[in-house]
Amino acid sequence: MERDQAALTPMANAIRALAMDAVEAANSGHPGMPMGMADVATVLFTQFLKYDPAAPKWADRDRFVLSAGHGSMLIYALLHLTGYAAPTMDDIRNFRQLGSPCAGHPENDMLEGVECTTGPLGQGLAMAVGMAIAERHLNATFGDALVDHKTWVIAGDGCLMEGINHEAVGLAGTLGLGRLNVLWDDNKITIDGDTSLSTTEDILARYAASGWHTASCDGHDFADIARALAEAEADPRPSLVSCKTVIGKGAPNKQGGHNVHGSPLGKSEIEAARDYLGWTAAPFEVPADILADWRAAGAKGAALSAAWEARAAAHPQGAELARRMAGELPSGTAEAMDAYLASLVANPPKVATRKSSEMALEALTAAVPEMVGGSADLTGSNNTKTKATGPLTKGSYGGRYVYYGIREFGMAAAMNGMALHGGVIPYGGTFLVFSDYCRNAVRMSALQHVRAIYVFTHDSIGLGEDGPTHQPIEHVMSLRMIPNLLVFRPADAIETAEAWNLALANAHRPSVLALTRQNLPPLRCDAEMKSAKGAYRLLAAKAPREVVVLATGSEVAIAQDVAAGLEAQGIGADVVSFPCWELFDEQDAAYRADLLPEGVLKVSIEAGVTLGWQKYVGDGLIIGIDSFGASAPIDKLYDHFGLTAEKILPRVLARLS
Amino acid sequence: MERDQAALTPMANAIRALAMDAVEAANSGHPGMPMGMADVATVLFTQFLKYDPAAPKWADRDRFVLSAGHGSMLIYALLHLTGYAAPTMDDIRNFRQLGSPCAGHPENDMLEGVECTTGPLGQGLAMAVGMAIAERHLNATFGDALVDHKTWVIAGDGCLMEGINHEAVGLAGTLGLGRLNVLWDDNKITIDGDTSLSTTEDILARYAASGWHTASCDGHDFADIARALAEAEADPRPSLVSCKTVIGKGAPNKQGGHNVHGSPLGKSEIEAARDYLGWTAAPFEVPADILADWRAAGAKGAALSAAWEARAAAHPQGAELARRMAGELPSGTAEAMDAYLASLVANPPKVATRKSSEMALEALTAAVPEMVGGSADLTGSNNTKTKATGPLTKGSYGGRYVYYGIREFGMAAAMNGMALHGGVIPYGGTFLVFSDYCRNAVRMSALQHVRAIYVFTHDSIGLGEDGPTHQPIEHVMSLRMIPNLLVFRPADAIETAEAWNLALANAHRPSVLALTRQNLPPLRCDAEMKSAKGAYRLLAAKAPREVVVLATGSEVAIAQDVAAGLEAQGIGADVVSFPCWELFDEQDAAYRADLLPEGVLKVSIEAGVTLGWQKYVGDGLIIGIDSFGASAPIDKLYDHFGLTAEKILPRVLARLS
Repeated sequence: MERDQAALTPMANAIRALAMDAVEAANSGHPGMPMGMADVATVLFTQFLKYDPAAPKWADRDRFVLSAGHGSMLIYALLHLTGYAAPTMDDIRNFRQLGSPCAGHPENDMLEGVECTTGPLGQGLAMAVGMAIAERHLNATFGDALVDHKTWVIAGDGCLMEGINHEAVGLAGTLGLGRLNVLWDDNKITIDGDTSLSTTEDILARYAASGWHTASCDGHDFADIARALAEAEADPRPSLVSCKTVIGKGAPNKQGGHNVHGSPLGKSEIEAARDYLGWTAAPFEVPADILADWRAAGAKGAALSAAWEARAAAHPQGAELARRMAGELPSGTAEAMDAYLASLVANPPKVATRKSSEMALEALTAAVPEMVGGSADLTGSNNTKTKATGPLTKGSYGGRYVYYGIREFGMAAAMNGMALHGGVIPYGGTFLVFSDYCRNAVRMSALQHVRAIYVFTHDSIGLGEDGPTHQPIEHVMSLRMIPNLLVFRPADAIETAEAWNLALANAHRPSVLALTRQNLPPLRCDAEMKSAKGAYRLLAAKAPREVVVLATGSEVAIAQDVAAGLEAQGIGADVVSFPCWELFDEQDAAYRADLLPEGVLKVSIEAGVTLGWQKYVGDGLIIGIDSFGASAPIDKLYDHFGLTAEKILPRVLARLS
Repeated sequence: MERDQAALTPMANAIRALAMDAVEAANSGHPGMPMGMADVATVLFTQFLKYDPAAPKWADRDRFVLSAGHGSMLIYALLHLTGYAAPTMDDIRNFRQLGSPCAGHPENDMLEGVECTTGPLGQGLAMAVGMAIAERHLNATFGDALVDHKTWVIAGDGCLMEGINHEAVGLAGTLGLGRLNVLWDDNKITIDGDTSLSTTEDILARYAASGWHTASCDGHDFADIARALAEAEADPRPSLVSCKTVIGKGAPNKQGGHNVHGSPLGKSEIEAARDYLGWTAAPFEVPADILADWRAAGAKGAALSAAWEARAAAHPQGAELARRMAGELPSGTAEAMDAYLASLVANPPKVATRKSSEMALEALTAAVPEMVGGSADLTGSNNTKTKATGPLTKGSYGGRYVYYGIREFGMAAAMNGMALHGGVIPYGGTFLVFSDYCRNAVRMSALQHVRAIYVFTHDSIGLGEDGPTHQPIEHVMSLRMIPNLLVFRPADAIETAEAWNLALANAHRPSVLALTRQNLPPLRCDAEMKSAKGAYRLLAAKAPREVVVLATGSEVAIAQDVAAGLEAQGIGADVVSFPCWELFDEQDAAYRADLLPEGVLKVSIEAGVTLGWQKYVGDGLIIGIDSFGASAPIDKLYDHFGLTAEKILPRVLARLS
């Protein structure tokens, strides 16, 4: 054991050397964290973490999350040293260069072994909570033989100070996620200086107050680290381990100060560090014996993964787990959707789209067992709970509905973690206006290419009396601006069912469903999945076409009335329902031109900001709301803001004359 | 004392009766909280809160924040009963109707006595932290005779579960804001059901871990409430008082359950409640003796406010405090700005706009003593600290720079609270991409019409190697969508100075400054405050004009190069710098048409999403980025994303041919 411990020093120093050399070569980056946490990471990757560099997608591997993503060189060094196919040393030489998988912050799509994209502080740890939920849920479903792993996190002071940390900690404590272990880089430094500048919190006491186990260790004493990690592993509660470290450990003149956080050490300090550490190898070289020790540590998982593969192959549920982990929908999904659509066509309901979302979810959650829902304490408003989704609670992890609490950001990040873990398709609800609270996590869904599905209800002034604090104005359009995100604003029960179908079918991007509080009339009665094209002609002009009226969601019915008013005066008007801009933009030019022909007045109607509609309407007429809303019953509000056919029709006629 | 306590019961029941009647009449609203907290509020407003309904803007009044804003009928009832000019009983009858000041959630612009707009959970308490900071800062500046008041908050479980609560609590604890007292409506109920569904946190322990004093009381025992509030008032730390209450107290069949939270009680339950409470008055009637007791309580503050007015009138600093509270800039501000602009014109610097922001701030913070800055732990990156702004820390409240810590949302909400308190002009910084973390607070700045100034640096892929998690793409445009918010993206040091000048001049709306990490060349050398029009012609075409190139911030220099390339081929091209869309939209039609003439190809260049630019460019050419960024040095990125004159020029020529 003592010899083992001694061998760890050069292994940890290999991380330090790669970190300082890569940051120096890039002339940018963050050496402080990788050097400070090198010892802790070495213990974790040699003695605790269950992984196999040759089988990076092994379903039952432990998940490792570098929540303090700015310390990306830590994970790049670890993946290289332990024997992952990538990054290569050339990749590391190209740290932070265009095309290198060693990006400034770790990106899940770039490297196997990077379980999630981190950098936005606090979200890595919150995603890890989602991974730990997914693990317990799949364990309850598939048993210990197939699912039995842990989630490990390295987090910094920033991750713990962010508000989302409170939400993540509360959720993990309430759910009793004992397989979640957070290693806190407790170095008393933030960018602005000593942590005492901005916080005097007793962090361990706070975690304990939420039902966590806490421990401390000297983050530069291998044996003490191992003791604390073993204690964390053994405790049935989620664990926070305060690892007392010196930021930039190994840089003799800069360590322990905030200047080592995010800047290259510089040539002379690197020289000094080499002396201090006794590191004589050239930059980007790891002595063969040290590399061999690392590779031996990495190779230990091979037997475990092979044994697991054998168990899974023989297990009656092995194939089902594999299907879920591959993200493929079960057979029967299409049939369930078809049957549900047929019922809508037969009997089109006049309900709010939040209600038709619930109806679609009843059908889908019954057919797709990996769907796990939830709400940020608005279950009865978001209509996210179905008969098939019983509560997922501490000790009853087989449930499929998470009571996320009043934690929008924590919910969204946990959903990302669940999707990244695999085997689960998460959906979760809040009011659309509070998408603001979790906006960066929605962005992270898109950046990470995960299938997280957001149920954002109460999507306009149509929610009525709750007033401007609760009425989205800019939200739908602002969400459309996030790359790689599908934003659906369906107009009736059939479009809502189509939106759910499309959200599930898009395995590599997230979706938002913006849904009404108020009832909407049925507009279509076909099962032709027209929303798949993003926009489609709902009604064709009868008189010679002079106008195309575009609308989304609750305003499509108003568009119909406007068109009817025009037709009554002999003016032909198409009505185009436009539930998803992103999908429309992916159609071919002929389809788009047919729907939005030149030389015809285009009019858009949407109960939100006008900015953005110019893309489709050109110099046509844009009906929307560019101020905050007001508190009043819905009908008064629609009239007040000019969103009625009576008020719109004269404006269209004025433009035609 | 005992008789006093007995008299409080009917006073509290008056609140209950008004709450249940108003919600019933509106057929929507939240009776649970006002009925549950009626007893606590009655103690607060009769025995603790310092206020004068006849002088609602009295600078030294206590601030009362109803963080649980859905319980709005509580504050409407209190304001009416204690004798504020509004709301009248007719206003209360019109609760939640168009035009009534009694909106669904309390709005600061609607009623004196509503210190801030609440409803988005957690933000009221976080704004109260800002108010408490402002109070201590002004106390340190003006002394006890002029500034000596407290901040009281009523908060619910939602406010405490939100992530922002962790940030607010940490900030208040670190700054030792002992005059902040939070009364927690500890009723064990959230919308989804018992709090145990989603949290098992020991909330008092968490607050204690951040240096707060905590206490508990029976929220339906007047004497016990008074004891706990007195204890909170006396303790030098910020205080959290757990008020054990029964939600909907007084509705005999519904109280204590989650169904009483957000729905009218219904006729029969209201009947039952009247029996239960012994309340015999007609709806919207308060018996004269009870109203008299309330008015007597409200009248107690008159002597205090009069004494304060007398002190202020005689105080050498009274006029200065009055100026600051009125939100008027000091004399000398314009001169300081003029002198700074003159120095720029004389010697235009090639610096990043984050740096030129710092230079402008050096001039302005020296001239405007009420400016209080800060950063969410990115001081050295946001360049928000100046010589004039020493640290504002516990016990050194006279400082003017807050180390907000890694708490973007808490910072922004605190800034709102400081601005709402008055006497302070807050500005604060983070990276633009993390505006996502505080987005709803920025929205609340706009909704509340406050002068909060956001310094959002690292405003594009131009930040380089940190990669897509840190590179804003959709952010500038998404912020432009928020009503009543000025978004500046200045192109050089002069435009940055103009942006600061305009941000300060707009006393009733917030501003965002989106600033670069990278150096930018000087583009102008005049002091003509051209940014005031939002956009202006930076360069006029020399050859016959065929093109107008619009750009913002770091892309204006590229636009110049594109224009030069066109002119070299005999194609005339204007360059329009477009730092602020909102101000441009406020110009008259002639100005706008002159800048953006018809029949000329318009080209926009901005390192962000293209969606939105169609508003000005029509069917012209929009150069931008519609995907996430990448990790690489800046020059590689600008080339990779096609944002160089070399790559743009051929695209413009292709459109012309």
